[in-house]
Amino acid sequence: KARTWVGCLGFKHSSPMPSSFIGNALRGTFFLIFGLWWSVKYPLKYLRRKANAEDQPSYGAQRLEVLEGTVKAFFALAGILAEQFAPAGPHLLLYSAETHSWTDLTPWHYTTMYLFFLLSGVVEVVSHSPLKLPLGLDHLALAIALLMEGGKCIGNVGAALGGHLRCLLATGIFAGALCALLEVFIRDHLVLELFRTSSFLLQGSWFWQMGFVLSPPWGGPGWDPADRGNFVFLTMCFCWHYAGALAVMAANAVASRWYVVGEEHQEGSRNELCQS
Amino acid sequence: KARTWVGCLGFKHSSPMPSSFIGNALRGTFFLIFGLWWSVKYPLKYLRRKANAEDQPSYGAQRLEVLEGTVKAFFALAGILAEQFAPAGPHLLLYSAETHSWTDLTPWHYTTMYLFFLLSGVVEVVSHSPLKLPLGLDHLALAIALLMEGGKCIGNVGAALGGHLRCLLATGIFAGALCALLEVFIRDHLVLELFRTSSFLLQGSWFWQMGFVLSPPWGGPGWDPADRGNFVFLTMCFCWHYAGALAVMAANAVASRWYVVGEEHQEGSRNELCQS
Amino acid sequence: KARTWVGCLGFKHSSPMPSSFIGNALRGTFFLIFGLWWSVKYPLKYLRRKANAEDQPSYGAQRLEVLEGTVKAFFALAGILAEQFAPAGPHLLLYSAETHSWTDLTPWHYTTMYLFFLLSGVVEVVSHSPLKLPLGLDHLALAIALLMEGGKCIGNVGAALGGHLRCLLATGIFAGALCALLEVFIRDHLVLELFRTSSFLLQGSWFWQMGFVLSPPWGGPGWDPADRGNFVFLTMCFCWHYAGALAVMAANAVASRWYVVGEEHQEGSRNELCQS
Amino acid sequence: KARTWVGCLGFKHSSPMPSSFIGNALRGTFFLIFGLWWSVKYPLKYLRRKANAEDQPSYGAQRLEVLEGTVKAFFALAGILAEQFAPAGPHLLLYSAETHSWTDLTPWHYTTMYLFFLLSGVVEVVSHSPLKLPLGLDHLALAIALLMEGGKCIGNVGAALGGHLRCLLATGIFAGALCALLEVFIRDHLVLELFRTSSFLLQGSWFWQMGFVLSPPWGGPGWDPADRGNFVFLTMCFCWHYAGALAVMAANAVASRWYVVGEEHQEGSRNELCQS
Repeated sequence: KARTWVGCLGFKHSSPMPSSFIGNALRGTFFLIFGLWWSVKYPLKYLRRKANAEDQPSYGAQRLEVLEGTVKAFFALAGILAEQFAPAGPHLLLYSAETHSWTDLTPWHYTTMYLFFLLSGVVEVVSHSPLKLPLGLDHLALAIALLMEGGKCIGNVGAALGGHLRCLLATGIFAGALCALLEVFIRDHLVLELFRTSSFLLQGSWFWQMGFVLSPPWGGPGWDPADRGNFVFLTMCFCWHYAGALAVMAANAVASRWYVVGEEHQEGSRNELCQS
Repeated sequence: KARTWVGCLGFKHSSPMPSSFIGNALRGTFFLIFGLWWSVKYPLKYLRRKANAEDQPSYGAQRLEVLEGTVKAFFALAGILAEQFAPAGPHLLLYSAETHSWTDLTPWHYTTMYLFFLLSGVVEVVSHSPLKLPLGLDHLALAIALLMEGGKCIGNVGAALGGHLRCLLATGIFAGALCALLEVFIRDHLVLELFRTSSFLLQGSWFWQMGFVLSPPWGGPGWDPADRGNFVFLTMCFCWHYAGALAVMAANAVASRWYVVGEEHQEGSRNELCQS
Repeated sequence: KARTWVGCLGFKHSSPMPSSFIGNALRGTFFLIFGLWWSVKYPLKYLRRKANAEDQPSYGAQRLEVLEGTVKAFFALAGILAEQFAPAGPHLLLYSAETHSWTDLTPWHYTTMYLFFLLSGVVEVVSHSPLKLPLGLDHLALAIALLMEGGKCIGNVGAALGGHLRCLLATGIFAGALCALLEVFIRDHLVLELFRTSSFLLQGSWFWQMGFVLSPPWGGPGWDPADRGNFVFLTMCFCWHYAGALAVMAANAVASRWYVVGEEHQEGSRNELCQS
Repeated sequence: KARTWVGCLGFKHSSPMPSSFIGNALRGTFFLIFGLWWSVKYPLKYLRRKANAEDQPSYGAQRLEVLEGTVKAFFALAGILAEQFAPAGPHLLLYSAETHSWTDLTPWHYTTMYLFFLLSGVVEVVSHSPLKLPLGLDHLALAIALLMEGGKCIGNVGAALGGHLRCLLATGIFAGALCALLEVFIRDHLVLELFRTSSFLLQGSWFWQMGFVLSPPWGGPGWDPADRGNFVFLTMCFCWHYAGALAVMAANAVASRWYVVGEEHQEGSRNELCQS
């Protein structure tokens, strides 16, 4: 019985790794694979289509938007520094080794909030630069920043630790479901496709996180469900997972842009060779 | 008094069948009739209209989507097998006859989740095949899979058994209501019509299920409201009812396709006869 | 002090009528006035515009829809009769004078549900008749029927009687708010205007109902907040208020149709007189 | 350590002003700056575009709408006066100095409700005047009035004072997030931009309010979380903050109109000078 398919994956049944961790890891991998694949597929599709340049706003409006984005990003950065390095702030310390507990997480909470506004400012600057990000991405970034801010206001009510983790997961899933429902009517909309991708990446990495929290692979009893700090930290951690998912998507989009530009360059030089 | 209309339906009043079961059964039948009728009416309407073929994507994109759907279906199937036949899994056993209780329902829970992703993969494959399913059906299938997954994360909070059953029913009803509200603005949209049909079929069969759970026709006291396993099982059962409703709709759609193709063939041969 | 404006409305301050009843009655009247005015204004506007007849579906489809609506209305009527006159049913009795309490309200609950499906069937028949109701009204009627059905499944949780009444009011208000928000984007849509009208009529009459329940004008202590039957009855009563609002709107629409047809007739005969 | 950036802002660390007040004030300022900037930017953008005048309804319909708005505003004003100056009303007293507690807040509650209907009436009058406000603003004002009314019906459930304040904040944030999500699809829609602006102003001033309530700058212990009157007052206060935000936006819009008209006048006279 020990030589089932689980053994094929390199895990010995006699190892202390609990099966519920393996289950969460496999579920997470399922979503991660699709998220990662889509984070390459959709930028490539968009770049190949050579986004139509006619609905570009005038240059004057663009300069104003870039300035606004810069100011927003600067303020958010100032906010992060202020929250962290205020006299009573945590000074980038998350876990106090002395008291074996989390430091006061409120400044971290607001640091996370400012982080997403920083992101929103950066997206606003980049989307009005000559790089021509798809229209609507700046508003999506703002909406994400607000949802993250709002979600944290109401998120500290969870009863049990497992339920709290699943509740966070459910918000990610429902965001993806809503997005897929919109895509029934609005097909081939890049912003929706990217949002769905980010929702899948979030689900994937959160399943892994749930595995580590509830049944660690090294066999411990899981995190302490009585410590309220764990609830607050995991809520914040959920936001960081989403920030990570967005970072992975941005990296993949940049990589696929390089690939497409390189391809075009090759084609261009080949054409030149043919013509000469 | 015993010779009222209930007697006409073949139930003797002296039988132990409780009237609340009959009530639920009649309500269920009301919805089932409309759901079944619509599951034949809308595919026929769509097939007669001979869906315009011009908004068909290019062949290359289609092949990629078919591949993606196949991979998704394969992964989902692997997930089902893994959840069921892992060493600690239930090996397709749902009710343990030894302990007279449900087996551990967590693997069944995730089996159900993978089942809907399997369905989503199959719909994605079929909707890019030459069969030309209506556009948007693949995204609807994905949205359903995500809603089923997300719903189960938050669904285990029900207080009383009757309330839990009604709460599940309400989600099906509200989904249908939302769909009907959208149809006020977007008329004659096949995907919406099919979703509304599935919601009616779900309501219909769930009324029957409620009858069996709360007041069995053979007169027992109904299921044990103290057993938490019943709550988890019925939540899962709700998803299975929906899967059943989708299966009935698919069967009816295939049957109406056969009917229309046969009709066209007859017309074709008749025309040939007339011309010769 | 007793000769304030309240005295002008014909209420003596020395009367036992509590001021909170007057407040609710005045608020209710505020909404009723606008609801009643709109229920005349919008049909007149629509009838004057002489709804464009080109987006009329073909006659065959219409006959099918009329048949479907008839069957739906017939089934709903049968359901009402079955719920009421089943051996264990209430036989149209709502309040048992013997036990001084409500009769079993479950059949009434389902009678109300069938009532709205009956309404939906009638709207479906009429909207495909030569009367040419605005498009989308049949789906709105279906959505209302489903919302009423779904709302009753989750509506029995209210804590205090006043809170329960306000919670019901809030659903009516939010429905109106959602409708007004949609009208920001979709202007001059008759179905939305009618839905907003019905929401105002509902609010208006519900404020009056709240006044009677919480502080009766004849000075009693209000209804018993400990009797659960009151909660169930008031939830149902809310649906009846809505049915009443719809009936008032239908009557006003018919009256304004008569007025417009009469006006046209007069104009027609005057034109004939002029021409002859 | 006391000479950190906080000192730069003019606050000495030795002062009793708690750091959590400073944090809330800074966060509030962040949102206020953007809200104020947008409340100037968007009206200017709209006025420069010289709103197209062709989708103006006919004069007759306009006169009816103006009348309706006037009646609505008059009724709302009458309602405010009635609530305040009824024999049992608060006669504009909010805090009773004798009992050191809030007066009965129910009339104030309904005064606030009528205030937003008054606003809705005024917007309806002005938006059909020759000033040509953007289309849809009248429906937005009605939706805001209804949301304020509905929100107060369900808003009195808060558990802890801090949680209640954050819950109110979250509704403002989610309204802004929803608006930003809509703007992904509907770009450059003035009504949405104004709504987003109002949401930012609300957040900004509410962060300041939270600072004063939870950790007053003069060092007191914050408001009494056991007094239910505080909850009711703060819910109402949230509506007043929103009314204030709308007032600021209206003032800025009027100012930017004056600026644009003055600019045009100057250009006009310059052109005349050039031509003569």
